[in-house]
Amino acid sequence: MDHYYAKVDELEDRFINRLRKGIRIPSISAYASHRSDVFAMAEFIIQEMTALGIEGRLRPLGKEPNTDLDLPPLVIGRYGKDPKKPTILVYSHYDVQPAAIEDGWDRNPWDLTIEADGTLHGRGTSDDKGPLLAWLNAIEAFQEAGVEVPANLVFCFEGMEENGSTGFRQTLEEEARTSLADIDAVCITDTTWGGNSHPSITRGLRGVLFYILTVTGAKRDAHSGLFGGHLSEPMTDVATLMSSLVDSTGRILVPGIYEGVKEVSNSERAAIETLHLSAEDVDPGLGGRNLHDSIADTIIARSRLPSLSLHRIENAMPGAGAVTSIPAKVQGKFSIRTVADMSAEHVNRLVKDHIKSEFKSLKSVNSAELVCVHKSNWFFEDVDHWNYQAAKMATKAVWNKEPDITCEGGSIPIALDLKEVLGKNVLLLPMGKPSDGAHSINEKLDKPNYLNGIKLFGSYLNQVSLLYSRNDAIRPRGFKAAEI
Amino acid sequence: MDHYYAKVDELEDRFINRLRKGIRIPSISAYASHRSDVFAMAEFIIQEMTALGIEGRLRPLGKEPNTDLDLPPLVIGRYGKDPKKPTILVYSHYDVQPAAIEDGWDRNPWDLTIEADGTLHGRGTSDDKGPLLAWLNAIEAFQEAGVEVPANLVFCFEGMEENGSTGFRQTLEEEARTSLADIDAVCITDTTWGGNSHPSITRGLRGVLFYILTVTGAKRDAHSGLFGGHLSEPMTDVATLMSSLVDSTGRILVPGIYEGVKEVSNSERAAIETLHLSAEDVDPGLGGRNLHDSIADTIIARSRLPSLSLHRIENAMPGAGAVTSIPAKVQGKFSIRTVADMSAEHVNRLVKDHIKSEFKSLKSVNSAELVCVHKSNWFFEDVDHWNYQAAKMATKAVWNKEPDITCEGGSIPIALDLKEVLGKNVLLLPMGKPSDGAHSINEKLDKPNYLNGIKLFGSYLNQVSLLYSRNDAIRPRGFKAAEI
Repeated sequence: MDHYYAKVDELEDRFINRLRKGIRIPSISAYASHRSDVFAMAEFIIQEMTALGIEGRLRPLGKEPNTDLDLPPLVIGRYGKDPKKPTILVYSHYDVQPAAIEDGWDRNPWDLTIEADGTLHGRGTSDDKGPLLAWLNAIEAFQEAGVEVPANLVFCFEGMEENGSTGFRQTLEEEARTSLADIDAVCITDTTWGGNSHPSITRGLRGVLFYILTVTGAKRDAHSGLFGGHLSEPMTDVATLMSSLVDSTGRILVPGIYEGVKEVSNSERAAIETLHLSAEDVDPGLGGRNLHDSIADTIIARSRLPSLSLHRIENAMPGAGAVTSIPAKVQGKFSIRTVADMSAEHVNRLVKDHIKSEFKSLKSVNSAELVCVHKSNWFFEDVDHWNYQAAKMATKAVWNKEPDITCEGGSIPIALDLKEVLGKNVLLLPMGKPSDGAHSINEKLDKPNYLNGIKLFGSYLNQVSLLYSRNDAIRPRGFKAAEI
Repeated sequence: MDHYYAKVDELEDRFINRLRKGIRIPSISAYASHRSDVFAMAEFIIQEMTALGIEGRLRPLGKEPNTDLDLPPLVIGRYGKDPKKPTILVYSHYDVQPAAIEDGWDRNPWDLTIEADGTLHGRGTSDDKGPLLAWLNAIEAFQEAGVEVPANLVFCFEGMEENGSTGFRQTLEEEARTSLADIDAVCITDTTWGGNSHPSITRGLRGVLFYILTVTGAKRDAHSGLFGGHLSEPMTDVATLMSSLVDSTGRILVPGIYEGVKEVSNSERAAIETLHLSAEDVDPGLGGRNLHDSIADTIIARSRLPSLSLHRIENAMPGAGAVTSIPAKVQGKFSIRTVADMSAEHVNRLVKDHIKSEFKSLKSVNSAELVCVHKSNWFFEDVDHWNYQAAKMATKAVWNKEPDITCEGGSIPIALDLKEVLGKNVLLLPMGKPSDGAHSINEKLDKPNYLNGIKLFGSYLNQVSLLYSRNDAIRPRGFKAAEI
C-alpha cells in the first residue's frame, strides 16, 4: 500500500481541486430554488466517475410529494466485478445544508478556501462532499499508483439526505433485488470521529420515537381574565402530562421502559473508560449542566441508555392570541431515544398506556391525542465482523492509533435502512471531526483528515479483501439481518 | 328629563355624524405610523368641546419611553363649576385598536356604515369613541333641550389606553392635586354589559399577577440525540414547576392561596343566580370545556374566585434550533387573577415560596428565576354609594329594566388607578354589548345602545344630582379610599 499512500500525497492538488469543483455547486436539497444545483452536482459526479472508468448512472426517485419538484436522483456507480473480490456498498450524499455569507461565514461558503492553519473551508467539505469525492480520489490514486483496487465497489450517493431522505428507502428496496443483490458489506462515510483528537469508528446509534401530544379545549383562545376559572385549560393538562414522562434528574418515568435495555457490562464500561474523549470532546461549549460526574457515565447515559427529551410546548391554534390568553389547543413534543435491546413497538405501547392512564387521572374535560410521528430503531452492529475489523486495521495503519469504537447518541436512519434492507454488516467509517461544524457556519475539514481519509478508504478496501477471503468460508454470503 | 330624551332622538343624525367624524380618524396608539392620527383625534375632540362651551385642554405626557414619539395627550375638559352640584370625573379613551380591511372587515373600518339591521359598523364605535362622543352629545342635548346639565363634569380622555396607558398613572397623580381635586365620584364608560340581552353595571374586577419563570441550563440548545441523558433539561423543570401550580380541575395548588378569598355569601350567590345571563352569554362560541355545571358556579369561578392560567412555555434562546433539540433556556408564563380580599403582596410571597420549594425538590442542576412582571389589585366597589344607585336608577329609566350588578373576571388597571389616586367611588357604566367585538374585526355598536347610552349618561347625571344632594350630609367629600 505504500505506493498508494505516496500517490495520495503526490496528487494532493488534484484532489483539492476536485473538492473545490464540488463545493462550488450549491446543492442545497432543502430549497426548491436550488434543486437544479442538486441535479448539477449529480451530473458533476457522473462526469468524474466516467473519467475514472466507473460505470455511473442516475436513478430517478420521482416527484417530491406534494410538489412539482423532481427528487434528486441516486447516483449509482459500479467499479469492478471480480467474483473473487468482496463487493462493498459505499453510501454518501452529495446534497448539503443551506449556507449564506449573511449567516456569519468568514468567507464565501461556496468557494473552497485553504486557511492559514491548513483547514479546508466551505459548505460540504466535511458533510459530505469531502468524504464522497475521497472515494473517487482513492480510485484515482490506485490507478495512478498502478495498484489494483482490492474490492468491487458499488457507490450509492444520495441527493436528499439533508432534507429527509425522501424516496430513499423505497428505491433501496427495489435496487436491493437487482443492482445491489451481490453486496457483501456496507460502508457509510457520513459521520465524524467521537472526539477531536483521536480516530474512531461508530458501531452503535440510538433509535428515536418522536411524539406529538395534542390537548384540545375550547374552540378558540380565550381571555384569561374573563374565562380563567371557567374553562378547562389544555396547557395545564399538557404541562402535567409532559412532566409525568421524565424527572429533572433525567430518569424516564414511563413504567417498564428500562426493562428492555441491554445491560452495560463491566467490560463495556471498561472499554468506555478508555475512550480518548476529553471533557471538551464530551461537552463542546455547552457549559456543563451535566447530569453525571464522570465522562464514562456521561457517555453511557447519552449513547448506551435511553433518554426522553421534552422539546416544545406550543400553542397550536392558528393565529394564537395574546400572551395572557388561555390557549385552546396545546401541543407537547417529545422524543425518546432507544438503545439495544428495546423494542420500538413495545416502547410505543408503554408510552401510550402511560399517557392514557395519566390523562384519565387528571379528570380533565379536554380531549387528548398522542401520535407517534416518527419511529426508527436503534442500530448496534457486530464489530467482530471482517467489515469492522478491516476498518480498525486500516485506521491503525493510516493514523498509527488504535481507533475508539463508539456508540453515538443520535440516530442515522440511513444506517438502519441499509442494515434492514440489505441484511449485511454496516460500517460507519468517519473522515472528519466533530469540530468541523457540519451543519454550522464555517464548515471545514482539516486537510490531514481529507488526505488521510483517502488513504483510509484505500487501506480499508485492502484490509477488506484480505479478511474477506479469509472469512469467506466461515461467513457465507447472504446471512440474515440481525433482529433490530 | 323627557325633553332631554326627546332631544336625543331628534338629534340622532347629528350624533351619528359626530361619531362618523371620529371614526374617520385612525387613531391607533400601538403603531408609531399612526401617532399623528391619535393627536388629530385629540384635536378633533377639543374642537367639538369648544363648540359646546366645554373648557378643554391637552395635557402632554412627555415622550414614550425608549422612543422619540410623543405620548398622546390627555384631553381634559371641564363643564360647569356650580359648587352646589356634584362633580363627576368621566373617563374614556380616544385611541383605538388597529384595523385593516385585509384583516377580514366587511367594510372599511374607518368609514362609519349603518348596516341593514341598524348597527353602526366601524373601528371605535363601541370601544370607545361611541361612549366618549356620547358624553359630548349628552351636553348638546341638554343645551338644545334647554335643560341645565345637572352635574359639573370633568372629562379625562386618554389616548394610550390600547397601548398600555403609558404615563397615565403618574399624570393622574399630578392632576389629582390640582385640576381633579374637587371630584366627587368617577364614571368610567369603557366597558360593556355582562350579557347581550340585559343592561348591567360592573362593580368588581379581578386583579392580576403575571409571572415569568425562567430556567436556564446549557449555554445553547443541544441535539437531543447526542446529548439526551447527558444534559439537565430546563424544559423538564419548567413543565414540572408549571404543573405544580394548578391542576386540571382548575384548582390552584399554591399552598395558602385561598385563605384570603372573601367568602361568597348566600345572598351574593342568590343575586348571581338571578343575573340575566344566558348560556350563550357565558360561553360565547367557546364550545364548552366548562369546569362547572351551572351558570352561577361558572360566573362565581371566573369573577369571584381566583384562577391561575398557564399561558406559554417557550424556548427562550434567541435563534432556537430544531424541534428535536434540547432547549437550553425555557420560560413559562402564567398569571393569577385575584379577588377580594386577597393581598397581592401576600399572594406573590406564597407563589415565590412555592416555586422555590418545588424547584429545590426537583434536585435540578439548572438555575431558575421567577419574576412577577405585572401586579395589579382587584377592584370591588361599594354599590350602595349614590354613584352606583344613580347608575341603577338611570338604567332602569332608560332601558326599563333593573340592571344586573356584575363582577367581571378581567382586570381594568385604569379603574384601580382612579380609585387609588382619587379615593372616590368609581362606577363602570357600560353603553355597548359583549357582542360588539371591541378588539375584533367588524366592531359595531347597536344604534339603540348609542342613543340610549346618550340618554343613560344624561339620566345618570340627573340621578347623581338628586342623590348627591340627599346624601351630601351623610357622605362627606373626600372620604378615604378603601383599602385595596
